[in-house]
Parts: sequence; structure tokens; C-alpha cells
Amino acid sequence: MTTYAAPLQDMRFVLEEIAGLPQLARLPGLEEATADTVEAVLGEAGRLAGEVLAPLNRGGDIESSIYENGVVRTPTGFAAAYGQFVAGGWNAVAVEAEAGGQGLPQAVATATMEMWNAANMSFALCPMLNGGALEIMLQYGSPEQKARYLGKMVTGEWTGTMNLTEPQAGSDLGALKTRAIRENGHYRIQGQKIYITYGEHDMVDNIIHMVLARTPDAPAGSKGISLFIVPKFMVNDDGSLGRRNDLRCVSIEHKLGIKASPTCVLAFGDNGGAIGYLVGEENRGLEYMFSMMNVERLGVGIQGLGLADRALQQAISYAKERRQSRAIDSKDLKPVSIIEHPDVRRNLGTMRALVEAGRALAYTVGAAIDRQSRVADAAQRSEAQAIVEVMTPVVKSWLSDMACQVASINVQVHGGMGFIEETGAAQLYRDARILPIYEGTNGIQALDLVMRKLLRDSGQAFGQVERWLNHMVVQVEECADPVVAALAPRLTEGLNRAHQAGQWLLRNTRHTPARAAAVATPFLNLLGVVAGGCLMGAAAAAAARRLAAGAGDAAFNKQKIKTTRFYVDNIMPYAEAEARRTLEGAESALDLTPGDF
Amino acid sequence: MTTYAAPLQDMRFVLEEIAGLPQLARLPGLEEATADTVEAVLGEAGRLAGEVLAPLNRGGDIESSIYENGVVRTPTGFAAAYGQFVAGGWNAVAVEAEAGGQGLPQAVATATMEMWNAANMSFALCPMLNGGALEIMLQYGSPEQKARYLGKMVTGEWTGTMNLTEPQAGSDLGALKTRAIRENGHYRIQGQKIYITYGEHDMVDNIIHMVLARTPDAPAGSKGISLFIVPKFMVNDDGSLGRRNDLRCVSIEHKLGIKASPTCVLAFGDNGGAIGYLVGEENRGLEYMFSMMNVERLGVGIQGLGLADRALQQAISYAKERRQSRAIDSKDLKPVSIIEHPDVRRNLGTMRALVEAGRALAYTVGAAIDRQSRVADAAQRSEAQAIVEVMTPVVKSWLSDMACQVASINVQVHGGMGFIEETGAAQLYRDARILPIYEGTNGIQALDLVMRKLLRDSGQAFGQVERWLNHMVVQVEECADPVVAALAPRLTEGLNRAHQAGQWLLRNTRHTPARAAAVATPFLNLLGVVAGGCLMGAAAAAAARRLAAGAGDAAFNKQKIKTTRFYVDNIMPYAEAEARRTLEGAESALDLTPGDF
Repeated sequence: MTTYAAPLQDMRFVLEEIAGLPQLARLPGLEEATADTVEAVLGEAGRLAGEVLAPLNRGGDIESSIYENGVVRTPTGFAAAYGQFVAGGWNAVAVEAEAGGQGLPQAVATATMEMWNAANMSFALCPMLNGGALEIMLQYGSPEQKARYLGKMVTGEWTGTMNLTEPQAGSDLGALKTRAIRENGHYRIQGQKIYITYGEHDMVDNIIHMVLARTPDAPAGSKGISLFIVPKFMVNDDGSLGRRNDLRCVSIEHKLGIKASPTCVLAFGDNGGAIGYLVGEENRGLEYMFSMMNVERLGVGIQGLGLADRALQQAISYAKERRQSRAIDSKDLKPVSIIEHPDVRRNLGTMRALVEAGRALAYTVGAAIDRQSRVADAAQRSEAQAIVEVMTPVVKSWLSDMACQVASINVQVHGGMGFIEETGAAQLYRDARILPIYEGTNGIQALDLVMRKLLRDSGQAFGQVERWLNHMVVQVEECADPVVAALAPRLTEGLNRAHQAGQWLLRNTRHTPARAAAVATPFLNLLGVVAGGCLMGAAAAAAARRLAAGAGDAAFNKQKIKTTRFYVDNIMPYAEAEARRTLEGAESALDLTPGDF
Repeated sequence: MTTYAAPLQDMRFVLEEIAGLPQLARLPGLEEATADTVEAVLGEAGRLAGEVLAPLNRGGDIESSIYENGVVRTPTGFAAAYGQFVAGGWNAVAVEAEAGGQGLPQAVATATMEMWNAANMSFALCPMLNGGALEIMLQYGSPEQKARYLGKMVTGEWTGTMNLTEPQAGSDLGALKTRAIRENGHYRIQGQKIYITYGEHDMVDNIIHMVLARTPDAPAGSKGISLFIVPKFMVNDDGSLGRRNDLRCVSIEHKLGIKASPTCVLAFGDNGGAIGYLVGEENRGLEYMFSMMNVERLGVGIQGLGLADRALQQAISYAKERRQSRAIDSKDLKPVSIIEHPDVRRNLGTMRALVEAGRALAYTVGAAIDRQSRVADAAQRSEAQAIVEVMTPVVKSWLSDMACQVASINVQVHGGMGFIEETGAAQLYRDARILPIYEGTNGIQALDLVMRKLLRDSGQAFGQVERWLNHMVVQVEECADPVVAALAPRLTEGLNRAHQAGQWLLRNTRHTPARAAAVATPFLNLLGVVAGGCLMGAAAAAAARRLAAGAGDAAFNKQKIKTTRFYVDNIMPYAEAEARRTLEGAESALDLTPGDF
């Protein structure tokens, strides 16, 4: 099964009932986001994803991007599909209308991003990276820079890249060495960058590289890094392309997955220095870069969500089609579809519960990004900020780990066929594995959560998140449907465990960062499981309300309640495990010293 | 890091202290297994694995086995390495001396198998499958058949294969269609088999296929399947090779991993029928095949163990070598080896705890296979049988899932480099993914555990396993080292949860098999986590005894205790989660009907 159908029904349900789309549409600048417009936008996006991008996914993996003499050739069909993507205006869904975007909420953009990534993650990486680059340009570019570059980055006629990593500077960007020498009105950039996604390709005429580099007199470490615009081709005043800049792609990586997406090694300044233009002020490059970190990290979570949903769809399709063995509680020896076997259904249930919880979480954090800058009420704005700050590392890590898990279950549901590349299940399994690594490894996310989001403000923001989650549990408790209401105690128990773990960290690790670091990952897992449960609880309560009111699709609403119950019975138990690991795991982890290995 | 050093110290420790090697060496037929002999055997095996097989692993993946016109070419170096393997007599470590084997215990063979698979899983599959075929021949072959085929299968000059699967008959072998027509003194075999590991290759002169097929008048389903010997080349009375039999390899699969191991589609009888010889009696083929199922399934668990240990070694090596970021509790900005970072050490600790628990479990079940047929005392024999029956599906599933998890953590420890094929971490991740699938998917294993091993005898064998595990917890409780003794309550708690879950299944699912099937997987996981913990507890108690007696390597003994503590604090908490999922997960899993997807 290589088809993909965007789960529009669940997307709209989550946007309306959980992410609060009707409220978002009342915020300044988001007035376009009416239910009708959003429905039309999602429908169109679903068509592009399903009909154009998804069919290229398997071929892209087989063919992969090819490097030859500095040129990168993307797989057959990618350039044409990208042309359609640009023509449809899909490149800047959440960019404000004045800048040429669609001016829709981030929450809606998360849904379209989910579709691009479900359909073809390798393809979707190109607009995703461009989105980061143009966001920096929007926020920090000079009027002259915006005039020169922004328009075509918003349409996607040119694509942007992020040049951060160097061989010795991965998680620790402070160690980077690329140099930027001042020269009348611009800089000369020299150095090598690695892991540059779509750093070179053949889908557009020009590529605008955002490059971190160090001026000669810059302070050491992360405080001495500046950000530069380094175009592949110089751009003349009239917007036409000038001469080629002094940078080239020297190779692309041979990777486990996302093979259609070229991961480039770029050499800047082999012939005297690439011309670069400073963004904002010197030495503030990391600050600019990190200002869009939340959106980028949310983006990786959404990639995981999309890929996991594709895996779920594939598994369901195979499980319905493949016949093997009699039904366990029947005397009839005739083989049945394997979806009849309870263990297979447990696998599908696990996949669906995780995907739906992940969707609720990602869209809600997307909506909080919308709210944090637009809501008038200070308390609401503060809550939205707390959700964004605390939950972004959770979305990035928990959803990326989830994608790997769900992709693995998909392989398993396929049995022997899952291990054969032809089915595509193996590709999803390979593609997913990058997600816990890039945009800050999941270990770094966990440290960010504990060090910066929990300990730094003494648990203030975390407390707001707890209250936000508790509102959802209250909806479950007060639900008129007894099946839904019965789920509340388990959710409360999970929330209590998260609270306990947070308090333990606040009490016991503020002056012993190594101890906090040793249990940061289980704490993040705990928060992911619990938040997913609370959001699913809120979804079940909403579905019960719709059912009682006769609103919406009754079958869908009943399935939402069943899936939530599955989550509470089969996923929530891990909250207890992760809580124990947080509370009791630090000493024995630190006790294993480097010398013990 | 593409090197591999067999963990001889832990292997010997586990064999001696946990698997009871000194007791095994007193059993009839195993007298060769003195400490000195075993040490020499393991040392030699370690050299072959480290120096010959491991260096071929990466190249084998890149080159892969190649199919051309019915011929399969294994990667460069494989045939020569196989020659060394045969010359060293490694093919039949646990085969009795009279039959030409080394006559060593299965427990010792598990250790050598661990090495072959750690070094090069694709290579190791060839002797593994041959081992299954020759075991069937040993048990059920006629004297004439043994005289003709067995000798060269024992040495490995010829290799055996297992031909079970057909496109419509995977987990359900009863559905197979390959036909066997009687003809004076032999049968004519016609049909297609898939997923035949090393079904065709260039490392030996002849291949002896063990083929399941159906005679024309056989009963339907699994009771009508017979087993046939179908040689690639006919074997003359003088042992020389005769004409080519009517079977051919029509293609090999393009797989996610184990690419050096050819996975063949074999066509039998395109030109009138391949000549086959009945093994034993007609219609008893599945029975013969299943008689060696325990050894084969243990084998897959050992593959997982070996691959996981290789991943652990690679992760440790990379974590010591790669420098990135300052130490979290230091003001010194100098980047440190990432093994200094607590979250990385948690990852390494998780890997090591799982690998060492897995080793203890696999070797112990290997030893139980030795004991079940050789111990004089009926109660001990019964205990050994119970361990083999109940724990074999656990070894297969838990260790194969563990291998996937550990290989994934290895990728993660490598960061961006982990996603690049060049490091080899990605290969281990790909290779591991077959393990939960073949020799009965892990879902099938869980059903086997619950239906056949727990419910069928009303929990008798399971009770014996509980008592066996409890003996280990008693050793922990009574340990003079307070650090070790303090681990006992958590182990007891886990054992209690396993007991509870088993009793719940016995009480609530005997007449509702669908309900049992719905929670079989969490129950298997629970038993794996708990058994691993109890065995690690016994290992820690033994290490403490050695420390107190000044015996062995003090650093090793201390590390064993630390690793056990890590297991108890960081892995055992999942027992609680899996217990809850067993006790509470069935209804909501079954409630999601096929129509809900």
C-alpha cells in the first residue's frame, strides 16, 4: 500500500475541539481561519499530498538524490511536484498575508505539514528548512535584505537552508569554526558545513543559505557566533541572478533513510571567500537561530506524526487484506484477515492511540504558538507561552520516538513482507530514525525540558502546564458518558505522578545538574505519556458531547472514545514506569562511571 | 568502530555462575565441558569471530548477495571465511561426539553462537539453518539417509536449509500447497517456497533442503504435512555428487537488512518434479519440524543477544572517542567525551543492563536444554523442561525486541553519524529488525507462551518457573552485600506481579481465548523483564560472593553489581507497566473491532 489519504476528519476534529480553532479565528491576524476556509485548505492540501507527493515517496527512496561534480539531482518527479507545491501557495501557510503568506494559524499549518510529511518526508524537508530560513529573515532581516530575498523564499521559488553543524560542532554549536571576515559592506565566509538538508538541489534557481560563522574578533564559544545570508547565486538589484557565489557542495551523505533528501557537505570560500551578509548584529547569531527553535522542533514532532500516520494507514490496509490462520475463537479453519487476530488489533490500537494523541499534542502546541503572541489576556498569554516552552521538547522527542515505534509496529504487522523493501514499510522504518536525532537529539530535548523549562523558573511554567492538563481531566470527570468518566482516575493518577516527579526534580536536583540530567529522559517520557492521555481524554469528552448532541459522524465519535480507552488502559501504564525511573533511576545511572565501560 | 571483541569474561561468568556449567559437565555425554576446555573453545571462537567474521560484516552489507541466472554469489570473503569455520569444526559445537560434533553443552554452543552473530549475523545464518536441518536428520533420518547426508552437514561441507514458508502459508503452515507425489522409493516435489535463507549460495558444493510438502491423499491442514530431504545435487552411493535435482532459485529478496544472507525464492519441480526423500513417516512433518523449534527459537534470541552486544561495544567506543560539549557539572568549557554526559551514560547503562540480562537468560535456557534430557533426578528434569518450554518464547521475543531497542540506542548515541551508513550503526539497526519476525513472529511467541505454556497445563510449568526465579531472589535477599540485598524487594515485587498476571490469565481467559490473545504480548514482556531482573540479581549475588572471596576480577564483579542495580532501578519499573497492561488491557483492545479501523 503506497497510497496516503489525509485523515481530514480527525484533523478537523482536533483543530476544532482540542486546538480551539474557533477561538483562534477571533485573534488579530487570524480572521481568515474560518471553518469553511480551513476545510477548503485542508482538503486541497490533502489532495496534493495524496495525489502528487505520496506517489513519489517510494521511487524517491529507490532513486535517491544523486551527487555528481557539485550538482545534486533530486529523484524523478520531485522538481515537478515542487513546482505544483509552489504554485499552490503551500510554502507559507502560516506566514502573514502582508508578507505573501496565507495568514493562517500555526495550528492549521501543523495539519498541512503533517500531510506533506506523511506523504513524502524527504520532499517535505525542503519547504520545512526554507520555512525556518524565511522566518529568520522575516524577524531579523533588514528592509534591504527582505526586499532582495524574502519574496521568492515565501513563494518557494527560492529555497532557504540552515547551515549550523560542522564536524566538531554538532550538539555544541559554540564549537563552530567557520570564519567571516569583514569586507566593505559584506563578509567573506570560509569553512565547511555538514548535514545541510537540501544544501544543493535542482528544484529551484537559487538557494539562500543561512550560515552561522565567527568573526575574527568574536568572543569564544556560543556568544561569538554571527548569522549570515549567503546566496548560491548573487542577486542583482533588479532581482535577477548574478554570478555564482564561492560555495559548493562537495558530497552528499549515504544515509539510512530520507534518501531523496540530499544531506550536503558544503564548502564555503575555497576561492577567496563566499560573500555573506550579516543578519542583525554580530555575535547574536545563535540567539536569532534559537528564536525559531520552537517552531522547528515542533516541526520535527509533526514529521513524526505524519510518518506515523502513514505507517498506521499502511498497517491497517495490510491487516485487512492479508489472510492467515483461522480466527482464535472459531472452529472454522478458513483463514481470516489478520485484523481479526487480537494481537494484531492490539498493534493497530497502539499505533492509532499514539498517532491520535500525538496529533492532539502537536496541534495544541501549534495553537499555543498562535495564542502566545496574539491573545490579549495576560494570563492566557502566559499559559500559552508555558505550553509552548514546556511542551515543545516533549513534542519533538515523544513524537519522534513514537514515529520510530509506530513504524516498527508497521513492519511487524507486515510479518516477513515488512522486511522486504518492496512494501514500503521498511522505508518508513528507516526514514523515521532521523527524527530523534536532528534539530537537537532527544537527549538534548530532555535536558532542555528539565534544565531550562522546569528548574530555571522553579517550576512556574510547569505548574501552568499541569493546570492546563488538569482542565482536561476535569472535562473527563464531568463527562456524562460513564465510559469516558471512568477514565478520569487513571488520568489523574498519571498527572499526580508527573507532579510528583517534577517536584522531586525541583527539590533534589537544582544544585546537582548531573542528577537532573541522568533522569531527564524518563521525565520527558512521563510528561509525554501523561499529556497524550489528558488530551485524548479531552477528545473523548468532546466526542461524547458530539454524540449526545447528535453532531458529527457517530462512528467517528465512538471510535475516538474507544481509542481513548485503549490509550488509558494500554499506554498510560507507562507513566508509572517512567515516574519510577525518574524518582529512583538517577543514582544507579551516575554510579556507572565512564571507567565502568 | 567495526571491530568486535567477544565478551569472554562475562560469557564465562554467566556460564559458570548462572548457567551452572560445572554441574553440566557432570552430566552424561557432557564430560568434555571442563572449565579449561570451555575456556579454550570460547577463546578460539572469539578469535575467529573477531578476526575473520567481524571484518566482513560491513562489506557484506554493502556488496550483499547477488542473484544472477539461478546462481547466488555471496559477498567477497564469505566463502573463504566459511572454509575456516568448517575447518575449525565450529559447525556442530553441541552435536554429540559420535556424530562428529564437539559434544559440548548447548549452553556453551549459545556462547559461540552469540559470537558468530555479533560478528556477522548474515554469515551466521548459514550455520544456524544448517544446524536445524542436521538436528532433524539426527533425530528422524533413516540410517541410510544419515549415512548419505549427515556427515557433511555436521562438518558443514554441505549446508542444510529449512523450506517452510509459501506465499499463502507464513505463520499458518497448515495452508501450504507444495505437493509430493510418490514414485518408486522417492517422491516428486512440486511447488514454490519463499524466504529460504541460504537456499542457494556459492560457499559449498551441495545444499540439502528440508522441505515441507503435502502428499495427494494427505488430510487437510497441519495434520497433512510431510517432510522431505531434497538435495540440490543428487548424492551417489559412494558419496560423490550426481546430477542436478529439479529445483532452482528464481530470485532473492531485496531486504531491509541481513543483505549478505541470501533470502531465496525456490521453485521445485519445474521440469517434472524434484526428487525428495521422506523423513520419518508421512503427515508427521510439522511434528518433526516443531521438535527442534525450541533450539531454533533460542537461536533467534541468541542472534539478538549477539547483535545487541555488538551495538553496545560500538556505542561505548564512540562515546569514549567523540568529544562534544562541556561536562554538565563543570565550569571548564573544554568539550569532554560524550560518555561523561549523564544522559549518554543512561543510554549505555540501558544497553548493558539489557545485554547482560539477555545473556544470562539465553545461556540459562541453553543449559536447561542440556539438563532436560540428561539430568537423572525427575524433579530437576521437570524443572528444566518447564524452563525450556515457558522461557523459549520469552527468549525469542524479548531478546529480539531488545536487539532492536539496543541497536536503536546505538544509533542515537552516534547522533548524526548514526544515521550515516558508514559508521555501521545503521546496519545493526536494519539487521536487527528481522529478529522479531522470523521463526514465528513475536506475536506468535506470545500466543505460544499463554496458550500452550501457561493455560494448557493450568499453570504447572509456569509455577515451576516462578519457583526457579524465586530461588534467585532468595540469593539476592541473603546476599551479605547490603547493596545487593537491597535490590530484593523490587525483584520480589516484579515476581509477584508476574504471578498475579499469570493467575489472572488462568482465571479469566481459559474459555475466552481472544481475551488471552489480546494481552499475550504484555504478559510476555512482563515475564521477560522480571526473569531478566531475577537472573541479574543472581549474577550480582554471585559477583558479591566472588568479591568477598577475593575471587575473579574485582572491577568486573563491582560492575556486575552496578549494572544489576541499574537494571532494577531503570528496567524493572516496566514490569509494573506490563502487568497493568496484562490485567487491564484486554477489554479495550478487543473493543476496537476490525470495523473500527
